[in-house]
Amino acid sequence: MKKHNFSAGPAILPASVLEEAAQAVRDFNGIGLSILEISHRSPSFSAVLEEADELVRELLGLSDDYGLAWLTGGASTQFFMAPMNLLDDDKMAAYADTGSWSAKAIKEARNFGAVEVVASSKPQNYAYIPKQYEIPAHAQYLHLTSNNTIFGTQYHSWPETNVPFVADMSSDMFSRPVDVNRFGLIYAGAQKNLGPAGVTLVIVRKDMLGRVSRKLPSMLDYRIHLENGSTYNTPPVFPIYVSMLTMRWIKANGGLQGMARHNEAKAKALYDEIDANPMFRGVAAKEDRSLMNATFVMAEGKEEMAPAFLQATKDAGCVDVKGHRSVGGFRASIYNAMAPESIGVLVSVMQDFAQKNG
Amino acid sequence: MKKHNFSAGPAILPASVLEEAAQAVRDFNGIGLSILEISHRSPSFSAVLEEADELVRELLGLSDDYGLAWLTGGASTQFFMAPMNLLDDDKMAAYADTGSWSAKAIKEARNFGAVEVVASSKPQNYAYIPKQYEIPAHAQYLHLTSNNTIFGTQYHSWPETNVPFVADMSSDMFSRPVDVNRFGLIYAGAQKNLGPAGVTLVIVRKDMLGRVSRKLPSMLDYRIHLENGSTYNTPPVFPIYVSMLTMRWIKANGGLQGMARHNEAKAKALYDEIDANPMFRGVAAKEDRSLMNATFVMAEGKEEMAPAFLQATKDAGCVDVKGHRSVGGFRASIYNAMAPESIGVLVSVMQDFAQKNG
Repeated sequence: MKKHNFSAGPAILPASVLEEAAQAVRDFNGIGLSILEISHRSPSFSAVLEEADELVRELLGLSDDYGLAWLTGGASTQFFMAPMNLLDDDKMAAYADTGSWSAKAIKEARNFGAVEVVASSKPQNYAYIPKQYEIPAHAQYLHLTSNNTIFGTQYHSWPETNVPFVADMSSDMFSRPVDVNRFGLIYAGAQKNLGPAGVTLVIVRKDMLGRVSRKLPSMLDYRIHLENGSTYNTPPVFPIYVSMLTMRWIKANGGLQGMARHNEAKAKALYDEIDANPMFRGVAAKEDRSLMNATFVMAEGKEEMAPAFLQATKDAGCVDVKGHRSVGGFRASIYNAMAPESIGVLVSVMQDFAQKNG
Repeated sequence: MKKHNFSAGPAILPASVLEEAAQAVRDFNGIGLSILEISHRSPSFSAVLEEADELVRELLGLSDDYGLAWLTGGASTQFFMAPMNLLDDDKMAAYADTGSWSAKAIKEARNFGAVEVVASSKPQNYAYIPKQYEIPAHAQYLHLTSNNTIFGTQYHSWPETNVPFVADMSSDMFSRPVDVNRFGLIYAGAQKNLGPAGVTLVIVRKDMLGRVSRKLPSMLDYRIHLENGSTYNTPPVFPIYVSMLTMRWIKANGGLQGMARHNEAKAKALYDEIDANPMFRGVAAKEDRSLMNATFVMAEGKEEMAPAFLQATKDAGCVDVKGHRSVGGFRASIYNAMAPESIGVLVSVMQDFAQKNG
């Protein structure tokens, strides 16, 4: 049976990317060796890395003011590495608390300077994105989590401020156009829209760097990775390769504009059903709904039917529709690589379920 | 033409492992999804991680005094993470300097406490492993690089001391039996004998932890990774999977005893030729020669023939026999997965070259 992969991450990748990646594990570009067993300084991999860098620059329209690096350790490493590189002990950074990942970023930043939580939707279990809050002008940066995978919320506009943003875009990177010039630093664990687990893309405005007085271990210093083009040490070769293939696919499918159109249509199909179907209700504030992760629960009075609905999704080949324990209910993660047909299957399951049980 | 992969790393992996890994990129264990797109908390991947942990414990005979974790960032990250976790500001650690990687480890450790370089072969361009040096009893640990990839040297016995070792085993992990009980911490970037680039195995004696007063970011605290079984955050799923497959292959081929026999025979065949062939000479002290990386140069007076010999290796399908720029000449990396037949091909090229040019 065809599987429809609604996993929150590591998440669905394009079928053509998986096919090409499998071939490269056997024999990379006909060189007689696997991509897993070649030097990161070989001409074959250097070409991959160069193309990956170019695709990031092209997709985002990055100016030379920005550098980029392919690192490891996920967003969780960036939670401390960002303040370590950008926030001196006697300075302050502003943080918006919009979910569990924001909260972790806040916790890790407190080791490196003053942290001011300027907005939080925690009291409402993170069901919305706070707006209209004050951001002190002396903040070194404002940290945002652009999409909140667990709670199903996403920024659809950015705060008005001259303070540069530092953003965790792990779960909506390359899913829509972004005005990069508002951002001092963007980081994204690859394992949603970008590639497999094991690589983290970091994009940084160069003038943000070199302002802290603390000593940085070489591997934690963004400048060293930028200077060395992601090869200060052995980078995660295969995860970078698969990310490069995925960006090629994004480019071939209309770039970030194309992804946005496609993602908006998919999300609309799903949210329309959530709103129309009497068996379900959405969790997040409508204006802040995520185009990547749709969270929903059984309608009031129907709660005991949740296990039966989850089983029905499984019976139809839908994988990982169970919600995160912090929210309960259901979560359908519908990243770039998910086809509209898979949304159609889930919508049909919802409709059938209502018909049989309504 | 069949390729013989003498790359220093990322390096050769067993053909059967590559085949199974390629299949898993298409469809993992028949679940209808790629290993690249499933949750790190899915039952399918949890089983991989569990088996990987068990194989490490079984191959090394690890007692419960030791914990292990699959991390990222390579040995270069361990260069600072080890002292950050084990060495308090007012304490001292001893370091043996046996090559470029040792020197980097020393440099990074100096940020965290006193570092005493108790031995160094640097004045002889690292051509041997220092022996018979004093290790102060109050050292928190003695840091060793068990195999020096660039210079072709390897420890064949360990220093006599009660100070626990902290060892970078990136390039000879699982190539031979090791008395783990001498070690407080072992770390190894996977991309030589263990798997592809993108994962680092860390093995630590639990009583080494919790002795430093500094605050550790969560992702840099070994205790957090041990407590969370390598899933505090999303681990590098595919590199761990391929490492697990490689360990299965090691186990099926006689475990570490089997690897040692096989590696000794391969190294002997190559070093015998280096010593017998008048066109070449070995670089490293004979008693310290690495079973993983054989370094050799043209014999005196034959230096100008180096490019022709390198071309001859390429013509025979031998990949990456060029030496590292710090040593020059040639380096044949002959890790676990290299078949004796490939050594035979290189030896034949050396013999033919001597016959034609001698």
